[in-house]
Amino acid sequence: MTHRIAAIAGDGIGTEVLPEGLRILEAAAKRFDIDLEIEHFDFASCDYYLEHGQMLPDDWFDTLSSFDAIFFGAVGWPEKVPDHISLWGSLLQFRRAFDQYINLRPCRLMPGIKSPLADREPGDIDFYVVRENTEGEYSSVGGKMFEGTEREVVIQDTVMTRTGIDRVLKYAFDLASKRPRHKLTSATKSNGISITMPYWDERVKAMASHYPDVTVDQFHIDILTANFVLHPDWFDVVVASNLFGDILSDLGPACTGTIGVAPSANINPEGKYPSLFEPVHGSAPDIAGKGIANPIGQMWCGAMMLEHLGHEEAGKAIVDAIEQVLAAGPEQAPLTPDLKGQGTTQSLGKAITEAL
Amino acid sequence: MTHRIAAIAGDGIGTEVLPEGLRILEAAAKRFDIDLEIEHFDFASCDYYLEHGQMLPDDWFDTLSSFDAIFFGAVGWPEKVPDHISLWGSLLQFRRAFDQYINLRPCRLMPGIKSPLADREPGDIDFYVVRENTEGEYSSVGGKMFEGTEREVVIQDTVMTRTGIDRVLKYAFDLASKRPRHKLTSATKSNGISITMPYWDERVKAMASHYPDVTVDQFHIDILTANFVLHPDWFDVVVASNLFGDILSDLGPACTGTIGVAPSANINPEGKYPSLFEPVHGSAPDIAGKGIANPIGQMWCGAMMLEHLGHEEAGKAIVDAIEQVLAAGPEQAPLTPDLKGQGTTQSLGKAITEAL
Ligand SMILES: CC(C)[C@H](C(=O)O)[C@@H](O)C(=O)O
Ligand SMILES: CC(C)[C@H](C(=O)O)[C@@H](O)C(=O)O
Repeated sequence: MTHRIAAIAGDGIGTEVLPEGLRILEAAAKRFDIDLEIEHFDFASCDYYLEHGQMLPDDWFDTLSSFDAIFFGAVGWPEKVPDHISLWGSLLQFRRAFDQYINLRPCRLMPGIKSPLADREPGDIDFYVVRENTEGEYSSVGGKMFEGTEREVVIQDTVMTRTGIDRVLKYAFDLASKRPRHKLTSATKSNGISITMPYWDERVKAMASHYPDVTVDQFHIDILTANFVLHPDWFDVVVASNLFGDILSDLGPACTGTIGVAPSANINPEGKYPSLFEPVHGSAPDIAGKGIANPIGQMWCGAMMLEHLGHEEAGKAIVDAIEQVLAAGPEQAPLTPDLKGQGTTQSLGKAITEAL
Repeated sequence: MTHRIAAIAGDGIGTEVLPEGLRILEAAAKRFDIDLEIEHFDFASCDYYLEHGQMLPDDWFDTLSSFDAIFFGAVGWPEKVPDHISLWGSLLQFRRAFDQYINLRPCRLMPGIKSPLADREPGDIDFYVVRENTEGEYSSVGGKMFEGTEREVVIQDTVMTRTGIDRVLKYAFDLASKRPRHKLTSATKSNGISITMPYWDERVKAMASHYPDVTVDQFHIDILTANFVLHPDWFDVVVASNLFGDILSDLGPACTGTIGVAPSANINPEGKYPSLFEPVHGSAPDIAGKGIANPIGQMWCGAMMLEHLGHEEAGKAIVDAIEQVLAAGPEQAPLTPDLKGQGTTQSLGKAITEAL
């Protein structure tokens, strides 16, 4: 059985790390006898926008629908195209159109990486952020009034639905009940955001009644970010709205040393549409073109994609290879500058692929 | 000239730390010959709500308006009254009714406190969060539809006004231009929150043109939280919306070791209404009644209040006393358990007051 993969490099360091992700995917395919068919697309990038006046071709939905998964680099280059145009015209559109309502992001302190937190070792930080990925604070409803005057006002609606909340909670509770610690933390802000957030709390309570084996706690987002830093060992599965999940899944990886290694999976659990795999780091225009971007986030995405496609063993082998090279440390392995090494995107990509 | 101060202890540890705040205020008043008249109120607490069915008496606005400042403990006890009722019925109401549109929160790593961040020393973390405090994401506009059915949907509006944004930006730019580093960081999320956040960016750009001496940068809230952990030394004045400011002003203090010492000032800069001073930590029901809450946040609030009332020297003396006791460390000083000491709220409060 052939898996058809759409590869989209996008912008900035996306174009540098994607090839390393493909490098390890091809090696894994060979070793585990997996049939991958990769097709490249140049849309969903700011350069494409500058040429075509839109981020995507008109037939993007049909084109991409026929694939089994999308392997994505990064999109956005604010000096070329404002972020809200490039992102809403591509990545955020994919998440909605392909109903990728789960954004799954592991936060794990890897061997060989120094956490910015004092006295933390691998094993101390090991949790998942499960982020709602289609609705909530990322809404397209709202507008501006009294434009250009002193009285100018802008309004933007947060929209949450029972369907939208319940399905992400169910995924998170299922995940928690499969993990050894059976623990779920819900992020809200029901003391300040008085309509949507208390509703989220209500739905958590309702869902929890179906999972007596899962221990549930809840924190307001402000103190939760504090606790990520003070007590990262408290967390196992953290479930959050679109915005709060976005924040927590950058902060969590930062606590594990670098967001350069963090992967993310935008999942349509029913498999009706392709899921999309992209590193957390984004396009990072400030270091683009230098060949020093960390490819591990993208390579780890390859592992998540293979697991999603049913090849658990191959996925695990990639993560093992990453851990092995990281554990060797910056003296022995060509780690990139964010990991205090002297390696390049390519040399690190090659080293991990060889380890596999 | 007499300063009339309304003291409101509120809930939980608020009732334990407030007396220590008053203790040092009285000592400072004596030493610097300041005339303070303190009046106590029992409203704005969940117990008051349980007795009266509302958080505040009907005449609260007139009563409190006549004071020069409000010295506040903490409010909220979710097991007694849902947070969104207790908070919207008191603190959040004060902020709006008294137009305390600035929430000023210093984040400073103090001598003697161990940061959870590796290898950080006093001097490495020293910035202010300036939070918009009346509008934005904390809105009362929205509602629920299809209640109780599968189709249930909740909507809540974020409302930002030019007036509201410009005045907080002006305050933050003024502050930045008075600080040695002349640096301002704006927190947004204009790639995901596509209406309100790009508007905030626009207003920052417009305001920046009046402050050529201030260096301005901007981060999306997700990577900004990561950078608080990875590079806290980058920041000087951070300006943010109501929600983002709330998050950053818990995360920042967490990076300085404990949110137990962080103060906050809810300021009406025009002095038309009383400003309100409250520690960041909140009511902390989990440790309430044990006498172990850290009183430093409340005492530091006393310093901010005296400065606000024109007594800079007295405010500075309180901060010096706090620093002196902290620097002595848990072996020499009765630091509270959050600071790895064996002290109590009272013994620490007394030690700092004696140092003054
Ligand atoms: C208690 C809560 C409503 C409040 C807020 O979110 O503003 C608190 O977290 C704060 O920071 O003062
Ligand atoms: C680029 C941006 C719109 C996106 C998001 O906020 O979802 C990114 O930060 C992410 O986490 O995938």
